[in-house]
Amino acid sequence: MNEQRIRRVLDNLEEMGLSQALICDPTSIKYLTGYYTFPHERFFALHLSPQGATLFCNKLFPDATGFADRLITFTDTDDPLPLVADVCASGEALGVDKDLPARWLLPLMQLGAARGFELASTAVDAARSAKDAEERELMRKASQLNDEAMGWLAAQVHEGVTERAIAEGLLGCYRRLGSDGYSFDPIVSFGANAADPHHEPDDTAFVPGQTVLFDVGCLWQDYCSDMTRTFFTAEPTAHQLEVYETVRRANEAAAAIVAPGVEFAQIDAAARDLITDAGYGPYFTHRLGHQIGLQAHEPGDVSGSHHEPVRPGQIFSIEPGIYLEGDIGVRIEDLCLVTEDGHEILNHYPHEATVLQV
Amino acid sequence: MNEQRIRRVLDNLEEMGLSQALICDPTSIKYLTGYYTFPHERFFALHLSPQGATLFCNKLFPDATGFADRLITFTDTDDPLPLVADVCASGEALGVDKDLPARWLLPLMQLGAARGFELASTAVDAARSAKDAEERELMRKASQLNDEAMGWLAAQVHEGVTERAIAEGLLGCYRRLGSDGYSFDPIVSFGANAADPHHEPDDTAFVPGQTVLFDVGCLWQDYCSDMTRTFFTAEPTAHQLEVYETVRRANEAAAAIVAPGVEFAQIDAAARDLITDAGYGPYFTHRLGHQIGLQAHEPGDVSGSHHEPVRPGQIFSIEPGIYLEGDIGVRIEDLCLVTEDGHEILNHYPHEATVLQV
Repeated sequence: MNEQRIRRVLDNLEEMGLSQALICDPTSIKYLTGYYTFPHERFFALHLSPQGATLFCNKLFPDATGFADRLITFTDTDDPLPLVADVCASGEALGVDKDLPARWLLPLMQLGAARGFELASTAVDAARSAKDAEERELMRKASQLNDEAMGWLAAQVHEGVTERAIAEGLLGCYRRLGSDGYSFDPIVSFGANAADPHHEPDDTAFVPGQTVLFDVGCLWQDYCSDMTRTFFTAEPTAHQLEVYETVRRANEAAAAIVAPGVEFAQIDAAARDLITDAGYGPYFTHRLGHQIGLQAHEPGDVSGSHHEPVRPGQIFSIEPGIYLEGDIGVRIEDLCLVTEDGHEILNHYPHEATVLQV
Repeated sequence: MNEQRIRRVLDNLEEMGLSQALICDPTSIKYLTGYYTFPHERFFALHLSPQGATLFCNKLFPDATGFADRLITFTDTDDPLPLVADVCASGEALGVDKDLPARWLLPLMQLGAARGFELASTAVDAARSAKDAEERELMRKASQLNDEAMGWLAAQVHEGVTERAIAEGLLGCYRRLGSDGYSFDPIVSFGANAADPHHEPDDTAFVPGQTVLFDVGCLWQDYCSDMTRTFFTAEPTAHQLEVYETVRRANEAAAAIVAPGVEFAQIDAAARDLITDAGYGPYFTHRLGHQIGLQAHEPGDVSGSHHEPVRPGQIFSIEPGIYLEGDIGVRIEDLCLVTEDGHEILNHYPHEATVLQV
């Protein structure tokens, strides 16, 4: 149990006017208690209040003794919801996880478990967003492994290899580096395939001269990395180099302004304005980035509609791209940590235009 | 849109005293409309009432025109819930999907979208459980591919190969057969690893003489197969053969009694009693089987606590096993379709004890 993190969630709840909450996101429960299980369709939840943290576990789950102030277990033939109702303060409102499904929420309402039910995930999301020292170190390590994997990827490009073969081989590379695997399904795109930012690796075979885009990430002790690089395999044309350098400068311009108090939207604008001024605005078709941590995509994106200021401990991707259909796609992505007085880029694989020898 | 299937769901709802429902399970929406998308965190739902079927789609999803009586689209910056409330009959109760998350359900309640909210997934589950002629044909084909894959698997067993290598190679085999991939993560267990029914393939290397258990399934046009076979790689001892033959006879005894009107619990008992009489009762540690179709596990299991009679069109696994820790694990599993006058086993890979030449 991480008392500091639970304290932060309770403080956030109090600001929302709530004294108790029921969390069911397994990743959030892991974050707060250290205990992880994936419950499939079974009930699994953590009740938080100033009186303590109570974990509700099916007896089929791994033993959760010691992970919360109180553990309540039940079997497949028990109904766990009356047990939850007993722990809830029925005279007060209950904050609930945005993912709590109707099959649990409606019976809790019928049982009169609380005076009212309100969405309260933002109290946990806000705590998870500001990474503490231990989390920052794990995120650095995950990105360091990803830097090493990018070197391995660059060495796999040769005539006839398929996107899928490289994408599937990456799993072994991550495992050899000590990672538990992918943080998301890898993107490997040859040539004009990279003009679709969500292209899935297929049986496209590499032809020397094509550009190659890798958007990949791995896990380190449950924390996620995420990085993109785009390589040439022949001397780039002036047009190709212009596209590449525009994306590279957009990445670096956005990173340069990151510091506590700067708005997410300003960071997006720093990259977007540069790309727009270069004449490629319509071809940068997505937000600049997303927050990341225990999940590859966490709430609170780096986009023009997010006007909150960034806070120390937040980690997000900076991933501008230019996508010219049938021609070329370039994206350069790093993870950026907001520090107390500025920022730290977690990826160290170079940005400079590189021609691979294939 | 499949009007016959929607009609069956509306009939089921009526029996529950409901005139309208909001479905959000993407697989159920695909089953009822033919339209599939995986919405991630975005809103996606189908409203059903005798007045018609209304599909709610984000404009980022693939075009859903023509898949329902009415299509209502919205963007990421729109709030879709008032649009849903407009379509709901606010004076009547609304049946909701068991998976509808609190982030949609609580706002719909606040908007007064309905007079009350009740769990109604069973209306869809019951319809999906009774497979129609088209679905039965797809399930036959999925199991035929799985039979072929079992032959490929048996040929992969040689000294030093790891469980993981075979499990990962199976994906390519399925793709060559025309399947889109796994219906669940394959289980490959060597020797005593098979005594854990949920063993995950790891780096265990095969030693000639070990038994080999494969529990695998693939997809065919979204429908799932699921089959288990256990092989010898040396002449079995009398003890090993007794365990094997007990499981084989249990499998066949359970299948033999399947016909409309027989209870799920009776089918479980047919296998369990045989294993118990042979002295291995405590070592058959799970239910006999589960229903299957668009998902590998569908509601309504084959167990001693399920006393409903089976109905034509239902398809479930029959998968008895005996698990002797540190010694041997044997499971033999087929899919069984309840026909109008009996049953049809969808797998045709032999049951007889087989010694692989490795």
